[in-house]
Amino acid sequence: MDYNVQQQRSIVRYKRGQFTEEPDTVVSEQPVTIKVNGEEFVTLVCTPEYIEDMTIGFLASEGVIQRYSDIQELWVQEQQGYVHVRTDRWNPQHRQLFTKRYITSCCGTSRQGFVFFNDARTAKKMEDIHVRVSFEQCFQLMDNVQQSAELFQRTGGVHTAALCEPDHILLGRSDIGRHNALDKIYGWCLRHQINMQGKIMVFSGRISSEILTKVSKIGCEVILSKSAPTALALDLADHLGITTVGFVRDDSCNIYTHPQRIREYADKAQNSMLF
Amino acid sequence: MDYNVQQQRSIVRYKRGQFTEEPDTVVSEQPVTIKVNGEEFVTLVCTPEYIEDMTIGFLASEGVIQRYSDIQELWVQEQQGYVHVRTDRWNPQHRQLFTKRYITSCCGTSRQGFVFFNDARTAKKMEDIHVRVSFEQCFQLMDNVQQSAELFQRTGGVHTAALCEPDHILLGRSDIGRHNALDKIYGWCLRHQINMQGKIMVFSGRISSEILTKVSKIGCEVILSKSAPTALALDLADHLGITTVGFVRDDSCNIYTHPQRIREYADKAQNSMLF
Repeated sequence: MDYNVQQQRSIVRYKRGQFTEEPDTVVSEQPVTIKVNGEEFVTLVCTPEYIEDMTIGFLASEGVIQRYSDIQELWVQEQQGYVHVRTDRWNPQHRQLFTKRYITSCCGTSRQGFVFFNDARTAKKMEDIHVRVSFEQCFQLMDNVQQSAELFQRTGGVHTAALCEPDHILLGRSDIGRHNALDKIYGWCLRHQINMQGKIMVFSGRISSEILTKVSKIGCEVILSKSAPTALALDLADHLGITTVGFVRDDSCNIYTHPQRIREYADKAQNSMLF
Repeated sequence: MDYNVQQQRSIVRYKRGQFTEEPDTVVSEQPVTIKVNGEEFVTLVCTPEYIEDMTIGFLASEGVIQRYSDIQELWVQEQQGYVHVRTDRWNPQHRQLFTKRYITSCCGTSRQGFVFFNDARTAKKMEDIHVRVSFEQCFQLMDNVQQSAELFQRTGGVHTAALCEPDHILLGRSDIGRHNALDKIYGWCLRHQINMQGKIMVFSGRISSEILTKVSKIGCEVILSKSAPTALALDLADHLGITTVGFVRDDSCNIYTHPQRIREYADKAQNSMLF
């Protein structure tokens, strides 16, 4: 297994009333742009291993190629995040028929050096602290969100996002699409001109870079998830000033970034300055 | 909650050695196309509720609008799956900057009447039965795949797909992107010209319509997941002849479509024809 597929980070781990700073392993997330005959075709955000196979599979799956021999040449520029494909099966119509995502620039804000151009325009940086949440409140919020997500419990097929304040849920939405649940909350906030200061997002799914970015656009300072974050999401959270709490389960959780919004951590930090 | 967000289906449920046919509830999945100033902008596959909020949130998130008042008009054609937006913030550049997915036609093959145009060209219909798998083999495969997905266990951040035969794993891939894990397997199969007859896909995540379609393109007759399928995925599985087994956990699972590839079910069906 490639060493690129995971990264070490220092986190704050909370378990049964105790928190400690310790090293942890998080999974990598990397944008890879497929260029076909010199033309930018698609950018996939992926775990950076088996890139050739992913490219072949993606092109076949989109109907660009039908068999491996339809590819005359394929080479990976790993550092730059490019895969170059040469094929005589390519026609301009292919560009019209599938999922596209453009990543245009390296603006150097995250370790990978990539941000989505559009995201850079609309993401909000959280400079200040307008909310503090205790560990107990984290567990309570996660419990309440899971209990109120009745669609999820009945069918097991959806993700849930909930906009919260430390002691209650303001709005919960479930959707089979992780992004859609967040967009439904964002739209509601815009329609009702909600003041976003001091808000927390509770999310059932994994925290990818795209989820983290969307939470920042909505304007939340804290994201809680019962699942794991990716390394790229944490780089972005570092940069955007967002507190990321993952693996919120029973009586334990991990704080990956900006722990100063966690009450007990802030109290301890303050005490250690006093004495 | 809207009645559209879930659907009833008849499934085969297996639990501790017994299987029964019973009704079950699955979550809906529906394509919704956002048209901005008459132009097709994006198609989101979603749980069909709070469509207005999702549209507002998506447009803000993509930077097309900045506030709710940037939208002059918004109306939903629910039956047709369209949301119409009128805004004076729109400029052609917006079309270049985000995730795009085109759904072009209603070809009437699934209940919703939608298939992805590209998928219709490349999906394979499984007319015959080249594999039978027992319940015990289903549990064993799921166990083995989970145990071998070491990246998942270390970091909790990835999905795993594995190409299998009834009694062993041929190839496993993990990725933070559900689709990527499948593409990595597909690419490997194409490179090595694997005969796909009799193959099973074991998958850690939810079975959406896009996952189901990709599995059909790869050429597997059976998909096993420890999670849930959506209603649209099951409509496609019905049509494409794929056996869908969900919630494979410990000693229970649900068979949603084409149970004839499950050994015990097939044996019982044959016996009931004999007597």
